[in-house]
Amino acid sequence: MTLKLYLAGPEVFLPNARDMLDRKAAMARSYGFEPICPGDISIEPAPTRHEFGLKISAVDEGMMNRADGVIANLTPFRGIAADVGTAFELGYMCAQGKLVAAYTNVAANHFARTSAYYGGEVREGADGRKRGPDGISLEDFDMIENLMLHGGIERRGGHIAIHAAAADAVYTDLTAFEECLSVLAKRRDEQAA
Amino acid sequence: MTLKLYLAGPEVFLPNARDMLDRKAAMARSYGFEPICPGDISIEPAPTRHEFGLKISAVDEGMMNRADGVIANLTPFRGIAADVGTAFELGYMCAQGKLVAAYTNVAANHFARTSAYYGGEVREGADGRKRGPDGISLEDFDMIENLMLHGGIERRGGHIAIHAAAADAVYTDLTAFEECLSVLAKRRDEQAA
Repeated sequence: MTLKLYLAGPEVFLPNARDMLDRKAAMARSYGFEPICPGDISIEPAPTRHEFGLKISAVDEGMMNRADGVIANLTPFRGIAADVGTAFELGYMCAQGKLVAAYTNVAANHFARTSAYYGGEVREGADGRKRGPDGISLEDFDMIENLMLHGGIERRGGHIAIHAAAADAVYTDLTAFEECLSVLAKRRDEQAA
Repeated sequence: MTLKLYLAGPEVFLPNARDMLDRKAAMARSYGFEPICPGDISIEPAPTRHEFGLKISAVDEGMMNRADGVIANLTPFRGIAADVGTAFELGYMCAQGKLVAAYTNVAANHFARTSAYYGGEVREGADGRKRGPDGISLEDFDMIENLMLHGGIERRGGHIAIHAAAADAVYTDLTAFEECLSVLAKRRDEQAA
């Protein structure tokens, strides 16, 4: 039985979304997986934009329910953190006990990115927590993202791939995505053997 | 049976985290719910920061597994979007079919915040999608967040409370949180009647 992988990430927002999703899908097939991409199904118009958004939500959840696993692109999106839609989807798949893997195309980890957000003005308080000038604490756990995301994957034995993509290829470089496919395929083949 | 509510949100990072969690917990109890807060349990030290982070992830997932529902604070955190840890938790609870509700203390919706991120330089393309100067598209669905979060709640009949908190009370104002409690309590009492 071919494992179905949901390909989560902010690619759906890119100017070349269709091309990127096609490239990821083709690569997943080349490793023997069946890709399921948000955006694959054309969704019928709805009376309002709001209702259209709800339809997409329903379709994407249905795709996740049918999938055996997820590869989540956690590359920071419009800020220092992963796309929140992708974070939601990763949590959704973790709760279902599905196969989980993730990657990021930015090598700086969660703590480094959040420190940079504060311009490096981070101090350790009496409680041992590191805080920005606003007093809000930073997680410093050697993780690529907030501990719920990184921990949710790692505790399930999921692979996390980190690749420093070129600045102009942060959303298009598929090196780390392919690493996730390769690891998932190797484990699948070992289990089958 | 008292319904157990997981109180998700970035409060855990605040300088007054303990006080905020206590206030939210007391308010939840006043509406007849049993609050479950991340940060409630003291987690034993671990050999490394990384392992400590993994422990917190395990404890918080255990709390969610025990809870009957979640109230997620989706107020934008360190940028234009919700805390990704909270987004993960909301997805986790949606997948489990639990009661879901959410609130934000920022009245500007997802589209307005993302437009502001681009300094208002948003154009509608030939495909009908609105895009920033980087060509990346913006969701414009009259939703408080990415459609997976907002849609995941609304499609389950969950309440979404929006309150324009004062600038210095964005993380401490509990008006919208209380609205969620009030709506959940009313439904619970109607079902019991």
